[in-house]
Amino acid sequence: MDSLAPHEITVMLLALGVLLGTARLLGELAQRLHQPAVLGEILAGILLGPTVLGTLAPPCNALLFPKHGANAITLDGIATLAVVLFLLVAGMEVDLSTVWRRGKVALKVGTAGILVPLALGFLAAWIVPQALGRQAEADPLLFALFLGTALSISALPVIAKTLMDLDLYRSDLGMVIVSAAIFNDLIGWIVFAVILGLMGTATGHAISIPLTIGLILGFAAVMLTAGRWLVHAVLPYLQAYAHWPGGVLSFALTLALFGAALTEWIGIHAIFGSFLVGVAVGDSSHLREQTRTIINDFVSFIFAPVFFASIGLKVNFATHFDAPLVLTVLAIACAGKLAGATLGARWGGMPARDAWAVGFGMNARGAMEIILGLLALEAGVIRQRLFVALVIMALVTSMMSGPAMQIILQLRKPWRLLKAFSSKAFLRELAAVSRREAVHELTAAACAAGNLDENDVESAVWTREEAMPTGIGKGIALPHARLPGLREPLVAVGISEAGIDFDAPDGEPAHGIFLILTPQEDPGAQLKIAAELSHLFHDRQMLAKVLRVKNFAEFLALMKSATPPQPASPAA
Amino acid sequence: MDSLAPHEITVMLLALGVLLGTARLLGELAQRLHQPAVLGEILAGILLGPTVLGTLAPPCNALLFPKHGANAITLDGIATLAVVLFLLVAGMEVDLSTVWRRGKVALKVGTAGILVPLALGFLAAWIVPQALGRQAEADPLLFALFLGTALSISALPVIAKTLMDLDLYRSDLGMVIVSAAIFNDLIGWIVFAVILGLMGTATGHAISIPLTIGLILGFAAVMLTAGRWLVHAVLPYLQAYAHWPGGVLSFALTLALFGAALTEWIGIHAIFGSFLVGVAVGDSSHLREQTRTIINDFVSFIFAPVFFASIGLKVNFATHFDAPLVLTVLAIACAGKLAGATLGARWGGMPARDAWAVGFGMNARGAMEIILGLLALEAGVIRQRLFVALVIMALVTSMMSGPAMQIILQLRKPWRLLKAFSSKAFLRELAAVSRREAVHELTAAACAAGNLDENDVESAVWTREEAMPTGIGKGIALPHARLPGLREPLVAVGISEAGIDFDAPDGEPAHGIFLILTPQEDPGAQLKIAAELSHLFHDRQMLAKVLRVKNFAEFLALMKSATPPQPASPAA
Repeated sequence: MDSLAPHEITVMLLALGVLLGTARLLGELAQRLHQPAVLGEILAGILLGPTVLGTLAPPCNALLFPKHGANAITLDGIATLAVVLFLLVAGMEVDLSTVWRRGKVALKVGTAGILVPLALGFLAAWIVPQALGRQAEADPLLFALFLGTALSISALPVIAKTLMDLDLYRSDLGMVIVSAAIFNDLIGWIVFAVILGLMGTATGHAISIPLTIGLILGFAAVMLTAGRWLVHAVLPYLQAYAHWPGGVLSFALTLALFGAALTEWIGIHAIFGSFLVGVAVGDSSHLREQTRTIINDFVSFIFAPVFFASIGLKVNFATHFDAPLVLTVLAIACAGKLAGATLGARWGGMPARDAWAVGFGMNARGAMEIILGLLALEAGVIRQRLFVALVIMALVTSMMSGPAMQIILQLRKPWRLLKAFSSKAFLRELAAVSRREAVHELTAAACAAGNLDENDVESAVWTREEAMPTGIGKGIALPHARLPGLREPLVAVGISEAGIDFDAPDGEPAHGIFLILTPQEDPGAQLKIAAELSHLFHDRQMLAKVLRVKNFAEFLALMKSATPPQPASPAA
Repeated sequence: MDSLAPHEITVMLLALGVLLGTARLLGELAQRLHQPAVLGEILAGILLGPTVLGTLAPPCNALLFPKHGANAITLDGIATLAVVLFLLVAGMEVDLSTVWRRGKVALKVGTAGILVPLALGFLAAWIVPQALGRQAEADPLLFALFLGTALSISALPVIAKTLMDLDLYRSDLGMVIVSAAIFNDLIGWIVFAVILGLMGTATGHAISIPLTIGLILGFAAVMLTAGRWLVHAVLPYLQAYAHWPGGVLSFALTLALFGAALTEWIGIHAIFGSFLVGVAVGDSSHLREQTRTIINDFVSFIFAPVFFASIGLKVNFATHFDAPLVLTVLAIACAGKLAGATLGARWGGMPARDAWAVGFGMNARGAMEIILGLLALEAGVIRQRLFVALVIMALVTSMMSGPAMQIILQLRKPWRLLKAFSSKAFLRELAAVSRREAVHELTAAACAAGNLDENDVESAVWTREEAMPTGIGKGIALPHARLPGLREPLVAVGISEAGIDFDAPDGEPAHGIFLILTPQEDPGAQLKIAAELSHLFHDRQMLAKVLRVKNFAEFLALMKSATPPQPASPAA
């Protein structure tokens, strides 16, 4: 039986470790810079692949990621498995009921947001194929169809994440964008699957074109109707009679593997099958949040980074970088999507400003376009130059989406409690024994952290404190002040083992003292922070845990795991 | 760049789907029969591999699991990755502080539980090597060392699961067994790593024997001291500054991959590295429960089943089944472990009955022995006949562990709330409008489900109910009776949308009525069930959810996801 030699096992594990570690590290850095994680993950592949490591240290690159032999095959197999699972998760995020609820506007935005870029991309590729990098031997119709579709699919995970970052996800505007993107995703993928079927038959696949297309549409129709219903009916039995959550977990993955195998066999790519299985599974209200989280987190933080990093291993992004082509693709992509989605939103009756925000929201391509491009590259429909241009287009449109929406809607950067803490304004053990001293100590720390004038701040806080003591009970005190000219909220944290009397209604001394400084211009911020803190410390366990932390990192880690987790999908 | 052809991708996905689906299905069935899941998982491999499918339908077997080419290589790579991750989880279960707390007794049981079987196995293999299946060309010393070690390693996951099933996990006896097994695991694996190092050098590995052993012991020492400390120090920073739980998740897996690559490079197997990384990561009190759950569940229900099923693909269990060899191995394995662990427990001052229970508890081999055997098979130290015997020994010792302890300790089968429900005794909508009618309706259903005499039961329940109404408030009522001759607790469930007055202290009508019937001989059972139910329905959300269920399966699924999850590790 063929198997990996010990040396090959070492290389496989090392290569996976390097890929995963680098991708996640750069993904985290990208997110700290408010960029989509997929940017960092692809960059990791570019660093480790032929573009950088292969140029600077060819032996290292050849050792870790050999182009031939067992290791190349194994890595390809694992990357394929990774993208299949990633599409399962992407499918699980598709919430069909959201689309129905938003109804007409979403359908209009979604339809126009597909048709316009598709038409524009198709026409451009048809009229000026050379400028878009078509090779002489490529089928012109297939090429034009591919480019049109590639430009028309939005990236739901990126869009959802951007909206969450801007606190727009649950707003009316946000739900229109999300539901339009879901509709866009679903239709776009089905169209793309049909094109892949055409490619497959064009490149000599065994099944005839009509049969292939019939199978694709049939499979999609069955999964979205009978499949969905069947999954929904089976889940309670699995949860009741098999291990929980293990039963549902294995069921979802087994189904995804079968769906993927089926669509790969039909002649379109495996990911289409797992995507549709994901839609069917994710749509069931019987799927518990815990099961969803386990699949989502494991796939998003392990498989997806490995897959996206592996893309950079396949192509040299330096030698195939073609500035005019990149700009052309970017211009056509933005023009088509912005025009389509914005017009769709106007058509649906939205005001101009909101319609533009919808346009920029839908313009984000992210992960999906890249996967599409890779399939086309592997099928020989496009070459590396165009692939590189598509990847860059996908990343740039994703990066501009958030800032553009913020400018158009004139949004304030939403505050986050976690961002208001700072290591400089964290006092593990207050020296203070009185309220006056505690205010003094915390003010000094806060002013050092925020470059503020100590006297002004202290007098503002103390005046407020004297007027009405801020002990709220359960060992917590929330002294505060609103300061003119402060740009962002700042919360200084002081812990006192002995406790300090803040005149709380329950008479208990305060062990956790949070000094809340907020901008004068934002009267709501202070109340929001106070509400969030008192909610966090409603359970007395929380204060007990805070008293056990040793330093700021441990404090921040504790706060982070106590506040609702950020959405997963680091691809976003 | 070498990659998988579309046909190979189809086969890979189909094969993984079939492996995972079959393994989990049979694993669940095994657990329903109170057997370790790993039994079912290995059986799945035997069914799909050369033993059954390869004999009955050779083309199917050859299509799904070809012996040569890209698919064989890819499956081997994925199975290797799976066992590396499984050992990460096994390592994370090792709680060093438990061993310290139990101190002397655990060390005595652990030490004797290794030394005696090791000595017995070594001597047997040294004196009657042919009877134990040694090949003429195998090195006699290595063979004897291997067999000794293989017989001396217990299977922590199996043991933990057995103890939980018997409600012994948190008892004194249970903790002695668990901590002895942890100690046993740790030492056993280090000894085995050294032997693997010897094998590697014997089979021509590049590094010299002393260097290999030095590296192994050095790596183990570093991981258990500095490595543990470092992980513990880094985790809060990761949780504070990276995505949570994504940061910690990727960190643990990246580290496991590096550790695995390192030990594979040293010349021992990759799993040793990920096991030690698991110990270091799992030991940190900063690792949050959620992160642990995600890794544990995904690995236990996806990777582990694929790995254990893949074992059955490698060997024909029918042609290599050698009854005398199986019985000999089983006898030596049981004799050594039982004698060692029982004597160790006596030496530690435990009474004879408890000492025997410890012996049978430690006797379970399960997953670990099988992995060891596979490594030895791949290294050429043993042949398929002995491998098959070791697998059977591991499964049989695991299967006898629970029943033996139950008999020795004269334990009642512990009740489980979930088992007391039954579809026959579930009334989705009570016709009753009064207390009297509700008791009548529920009694009838319970008697039908449990073959009881309706008149007797109803009069017992109603007498109790009349003496003191059983509405406990928040819309819940718990009528009950203790019945002579009843073997197991039985809970009939009635839901009433309209509500029935059970004279609750808060005056609310009961919408969820649970009729609790318990054996007269077990006076505690009724109080336990009542306490568990009132705890479950303490949060009013729970009753609202129950009112939304449509059938028994949905009800059971809901109860299951609300009660604390069963431990993962389906290998157990």
